[in-house]
Parts: sequence; C-alpha cells; structure tokens
Amino acid sequence: MAYLDAAVTAQERSARRGGAPVRAAVEASLSEFGGKVAHHEAHAVVYYEGDPARRLYELVKGSVMLYKLLPDGRRQVVEVLRPGDIFGLSDGAENDCTAETLTASEVREIDLRQVERSEELQRVLTKCLTNQMRVLHEHAVLLGRKSAVERVASFLMHLVPDRGGAGCIGPDEDADEDSYDLQLHMTRQEIADYLGLTIETVSRVVSDLKRRGVIRVDKADKIHLNKVCTLCQMTGMH
Amino acid sequence: MAYLDAAVTAQERSARRGGAPVRAAVEASLSEFGGKVAHHEAHAVVYYEGDPARRLYELVKGSVMLYKLLPDGRRQVVEVLRPGDIFGLSDGAENDCTAETLTASEVREIDLRQVERSEELQRVLTKCLTNQMRVLHEHAVLLGRKSAVERVASFLMHLVPDRGGAGCIGPDEDADEDSYDLQLHMTRQEIADYLGLTIETVSRVVSDLKRRGVIRVDKADKIHLNKVCTLCQMTGMH
Repeated sequence: MAYLDAAVTAQERSARRGGAPVRAAVEASLSEFGGKVAHHEAHAVVYYEGDPARRLYELVKGSVMLYKLLPDGRRQVVEVLRPGDIFGLSDGAENDCTAETLTASEVREIDLRQVERSEELQRVLTKCLTNQMRVLHEHAVLLGRKSAVERVASFLMHLVPDRGGAGCIGPDEDADEDSYDLQLHMTRQEIADYLGLTIETVSRVVSDLKRRGVIRVDKADKIHLNKVCTLCQMTGMH
Repeated sequence: MAYLDAAVTAQERSARRGGAPVRAAVEASLSEFGGKVAHHEAHAVVYYEGDPARRLYELVKGSVMLYKLLPDGRRQVVEVLRPGDIFGLSDGAENDCTAETLTASEVREIDLRQVERSEELQRVLTKCLTNQMRVLHEHAVLLGRKSAVERVASFLMHLVPDRGGAGCIGPDEDADEDSYDLQLHMTRQEIADYLGLTIETVSRVVSDLKRRGVIRVDKADKIHLNKVCTLCQMTGMH
C-alpha cells in the first residue's frame, strides 16, 4: 500500500502548510518497537565508522549527519538525517559511517537482534530505507553533475518545507512576498563536506548569492531567502 | 543475525577465490517469492524515471544501471547493479530513476502489492537495501571527494573480485604476477556518467594509466591490469 500511495495529496499539501508532522506515521511506527531513547548534545558522536554494528538507531528529534573519511583526512558527509530517518544498519560487522549529531538530538536505540526477530519492524525499515535511498540518488546527481552554485541553491531549497521538487506547493498566494527565514544547523565546513566543495567555494557562492540579492545573511547561521522561486531556479532542476 | 555476521569469513574468502557466487543466499531468498523472470536485451529500458512504480525488480543475471537526468540533459548514473540487487521500490507513486540494462539481463518482477503483504520478503529487502546503501555511501565519497584518477582507479578495482577495500584477500601467493583481465560492460560515456566526469577526462585518465604501465588496453572493453596492488594504491583508500 505504502508504495502505491500518491506522494502528496491535495489534503496533505494543505495539512503541511499548517505545519502538520508529515513523517508522523513512520515515527509512531518505530516507537512501537521499544528500545530506549538517548539524548545527545550537539556534535556528539553516536558511533564511529568501523565500530561494531550492534544497534539500529532512529532519529526522533534533532539532526544527525553520517560521514566517511578517506585515510588522508578528506571527509564526505553522505547523509544529513531528519526525524524519522534510521541509521546503524549494516550488512557487515561494522558501521560503514560515523554518526555525529548536528544539534541536540534524541535517538532511539533498538538492538539489532530484535530487528532480526520482528517482521513488522522490517516493514517499517523497508519504508525508511526506500525514502533514504531516493535522497541518496538525488545527492549523487548533486555531487556528480551540479555546479557549485546549483549545489548551494539545492542545499538551501532543501531546507524550505514543501518547496522545490515534485511536491512543491508554490508560493503562498495570501502572502505579499515569497521569502523564507532559514536557521542553519551546519557550519560552513560541514556544508562544504556535504556538497563536495571546499569551504572557500561555499563562502564564495554565499557571497555571490548575497550580492545578487537572492539571499540576505543575517548571522552565520541565519539566512533570509528574499525570493524562494528565484533561488529554486538556480538549483539546476528547471 | 544477518546484521551481526562478520562481513567476510576466512571460509568465504577461500570460496570466493574459487569463484563461488557470494550473493547466492540473497538470490535464493527472493526467488521463493515467485514473480516472473523477464529477459531483456542489452540497453533495454526496464522503466523510466517518472513511470508509475508498480513492481519490485530483482536483477537475477546480467547488469543494470539506474540513472537520473537533469532537465538540460546532464545525466548521473546513481547505481550500477549486480545480481541479487533490487530496484523499483519507491516511497512515492513514481520511479525516481530510469533503469536500463548494460548487458543482456534476467530480471525478476514482483508486484508491489505482494511486497506489502509478505513480511518474510520485507526481511530480504531490508538486507538488500542495507547493502546497496553502503555502496551509495561509498559512491558519494567518490563523487564528492576523489580526484579523476582516484575515481577511475576505484571503478576498475571495483570490478576485480575480492580485491581492494576491507575484504581484500591480497595477491594470490601461488601466482607469478598480480595481474587481472577486465571485461567492461559500460561505454566510456556510461563510465563518465557514473563517475561524475566528462568522457574526455575518462579517456585522458585511461591513457595516463596506460602510459604509466598500470594497465594495458587490449580492446575498448577489455582492460588488462598489470599490477592490481599498484592500481589499488591509486584509489585514495591508502
């Protein structure tokens, strides 16, 4: 059923506009399977790449990044997780990434032996993994084919709820302007490591977007998008 | 259980050296769930990005690539599938990629409604998806952080069974030399689209590896690796 549902119904779109939790169904499902919820400070490591894989984790609240390091220290952030996303599953004995919180976070921990036993849990996992794989496919397009400006524009657009992409609900017709205030939870270095850029390139693109009047940087972590549609046009998706 | 197994046991390593089918367990599991097996010629499209998602597919034999297009025609190959891999699962109503065969292939098709019903099938899917997500994470590192030479070296090494990476069994001590004959199933353009490079860059790197004596190009699709370990040292993983 889940796979056959239309992605976004008109009703859902109107509910989302009101700020309803879109992922509530998935979140509720995993909480049924018990496990303890651990609280982590910002920039706490949940596990390191190479650690024994013993638990399935679900991000309940906050933000977590998964990254991999090359032996010479180059880092690639491979996933930036949102509430409802899962991590820690491994097809080997070890975790393939390091998991580090970006903000104070709540993380549910379920023993992998329980994951093996519960078939209902497996159903929820398939759904989560399918969703995360779609995001990974989009990220491969960004890393492999998009310019620096397109990457930064895509990253910023990704933080605007329900705008950009196939599910875009368009500008709010009742509002005077098509603007949005963003709160960033990643440093410039983390953003660079996620977008496959250098920190200098990220800073240069941000300055460029500022000079062109597309964004306004209020603080390092507060960015005002002057025109969401204009920024969206720069993502390479139009 | 599956998640807690060690990635490669000594026994498996020795079996692999003999060419035993490593993914046999997964393949056998999916065949239990019925569905018909369709035969496709090389370069046949199984489904297009945006097509309604109605079936789960399992690659039984051959090779399939998944790719996404940007509106201006730029293409990124996001996955190159091997027997035992699955595709076609979607968290929306549509397929997020185009699936095209690279060689003549056999593909099992299972209706997504059956996938929803069978909890045992879900267990197999979780395992497949976990494995494919690990590959997607590695690919993000390649696209985001590796040089052109490192990308091509990684791509070639990926085609040498059981060499490179954590599961490397090292050179065969009984053999005189550490060489390997590769049969490529992808054109230079497909390789470029998978590695996030231009076709010119792929050709330049291949010529460079040839000039340095690391490889010998027998035909466009036949490459002899003169020293596997030397090529592996160029993947950025050492």
